[in-house]
Amino acid sequence: MSALAAVYEGDGVVSTAPRTPPVPGPGQVRLDIAYTGICGTDLHVVHGSMDARVNPPAVIGHETAGRIVAVGAGVSWAVGQPATVMPTDRCGTCPACTAGHDHVCHRMNFLGVDAEGAMQSSWIVPAELLVPLPDDLPLDAAALVEPTAVAVHDVTRAEVAAGEYVVVVGGGPVGLLIAMVARTRGARVLVVEVDGGRRAVAESLALDVIDPTAEDVVSRVEAATAGAGAAVAFEVSGADAGINTAVDVLAVRGRLGLVAIHPQPKPVNLHRFFWRELTLVGARLYRREDMAEAVALIADGSVPVRPLISQVIPLARAPQAFEALAAGGAMKVLVDCRGEG
Amino acid sequence: MSALAAVYEGDGVVSTAPRTPPVPGPGQVRLDIAYTGICGTDLHVVHGSMDARVNPPAVIGHETAGRIVAVGAGVSWAVGQPATVMPTDRCGTCPACTAGHDHVCHRMNFLGVDAEGAMQSSWIVPAELLVPLPDDLPLDAAALVEPTAVAVHDVTRAEVAAGEYVVVVGGGPVGLLIAMVARTRGARVLVVEVDGGRRAVAESLALDVIDPTAEDVVSRVEAATAGAGAAVAFEVSGADAGINTAVDVLAVRGRLGLVAIHPQPKPVNLHRFFWRELTLVGARLYRREDMAEAVALIADGSVPVRPLISQVIPLARAPQAFEALAAGGAMKVLVDCRGEG
Repeated sequence: MSALAAVYEGDGVVSTAPRTPPVPGPGQVRLDIAYTGICGTDLHVVHGSMDARVNPPAVIGHETAGRIVAVGAGVSWAVGQPATVMPTDRCGTCPACTAGHDHVCHRMNFLGVDAEGAMQSSWIVPAELLVPLPDDLPLDAAALVEPTAVAVHDVTRAEVAAGEYVVVVGGGPVGLLIAMVARTRGARVLVVEVDGGRRAVAESLALDVIDPTAEDVVSRVEAATAGAGAAVAFEVSGADAGINTAVDVLAVRGRLGLVAIHPQPKPVNLHRFFWRELTLVGARLYRREDMAEAVALIADGSVPVRPLISQVIPLARAPQAFEALAAGGAMKVLVDCRGEG
Repeated sequence: MSALAAVYEGDGVVSTAPRTPPVPGPGQVRLDIAYTGICGTDLHVVHGSMDARVNPPAVIGHETAGRIVAVGAGVSWAVGQPATVMPTDRCGTCPACTAGHDHVCHRMNFLGVDAEGAMQSSWIVPAELLVPLPDDLPLDAAALVEPTAVAVHDVTRAEVAAGEYVVVVGGGPVGLLIAMVARTRGARVLVVEVDGGRRAVAESLALDVIDPTAEDVVSRVEAATAGAGAAVAFEVSGADAGINTAVDVLAVRGRLGLVAIHPQPKPVNLHRFFWRELTLVGARLYRREDMAEAVALIADGSVPVRPLISQVIPLARAPQAFEALAAGGAMKVLVDCRGEG
């Protein structure tokens, strides 16, 4: 089997290059990667927006699933075990870590950004970052454990409870995962999405979905909640209008889960936060328990993730995978890293 | 004794007019008012910004203390009892009320704005809105129970806990009351205030205070917290820069208590909310338990409010009281409604 890696060369260029499979050191394992997904952050990296953290040439990617094929000294994991990886390698000593919030470590060494990532045939990772997968979980679905863990973390941070009405603004992969995770908690969920293709995917997952350019979202939410408004809204769109929608739909004491990345300051209707005593909750990444819940929800079928996979492209053609996602219209694009073997 | 009222005539004009002391109806009491304070909302009313809710000529004012002098049918309060008033008369049937959040009722009838207020010799109010005062609490101090209840509510909403580092951005009356209430909960408190006069008042209350135009607030907070940042920040300034300061000082998982009224949407660094998993908590008005705690904190001296009283002006000269506050430099201006008697 020929070992290969997708390499971000800088300036928007991704290439592929042969790799000699490395040997795990003490405390490390070698994973042979089955699938690695591409997310918005990976696109930002390739477009050069994160060159302050990424040193090209660099192997990126952090949404992955594979199988342990070799272990270093002091590692008790079994060869053959399917696993995914928490890419959140933390320092353990900063104020965030010592306060128990090591998933948002001040000096995070995020695998796939700050360190070598998963878009290659074989990946060496610290054994302590492994998350075990059930033997019978298909590894293409398992490559979506990481974004599902994001969704679990978001829903947990916003304290979504059974019976609550939840609005998800933005129906991309993370938005639909949030919607499905909220549904597993017993919430009634409405997805707001402008793109017809994404609305069709949402409908195929039996999610209630609305086109905000064709129908008034606030009226729909008020009608569904006897005039009260939604208990929780998630802003997953990244758009200014999405922030406004998420604020406008909320009931008194409603919670706004802030998921999308807004690099620039955005105008926010703070008066509404005051008037209705709203709460805005920032949520970033996930904790180990979120990863474990994501694995369980995918494995038992309560969060079906395969409908989110738009395309699977072989590692040898990895540059096309980035192009496919950048072109728009796709949900999740996976890179098949299994090679010819 | 001549009964008098201060009357907002519209277009920035306040006058005084004689009043025949009214008789309380069923469920009502007549309070003879000792002192009524003026707050920012009252100034907004007089400047015409709230004419959609206020119908001039109107008696305004809602920060008050007095004594019951007559009771209507079905009222069990004793004549002679000193009392203040919760001006938050709610409908009881809207979604906010039925969800248990009647202090932010959708159809609030706020006394002193939507209905007749306290800046007069005698005020008729529903007995159910009375809050009893201890006999030995001076009524000038008691007129600050209402803004102190705001501060109690804010500190409670932000869940300030013992040992936490709290930054209060804006050292006006409510800011300093928040600082003092947070101190009663065992917090370490820093007040951020640009005005030297207000900083001097803060210092007279033994509060730690910083001039943000002369010293870097973030550096001060980091030095005081081993680099972590503040657990809680309150935005009480109403300024765009105040929002930024409150965001910038917060530690991972910090809470921003939003107290100031920002009528227009303001730019907010949402990326920081995401990155540090911050929470923004809107807080408005108060609940009955906040009023009760405010009375207790003022009565036992743990929140000394008299240093906040800049001036006391007789009711007959009420227009000057509004001018004094509008001119800037004052903290709390009280109107003495006791007449000549």
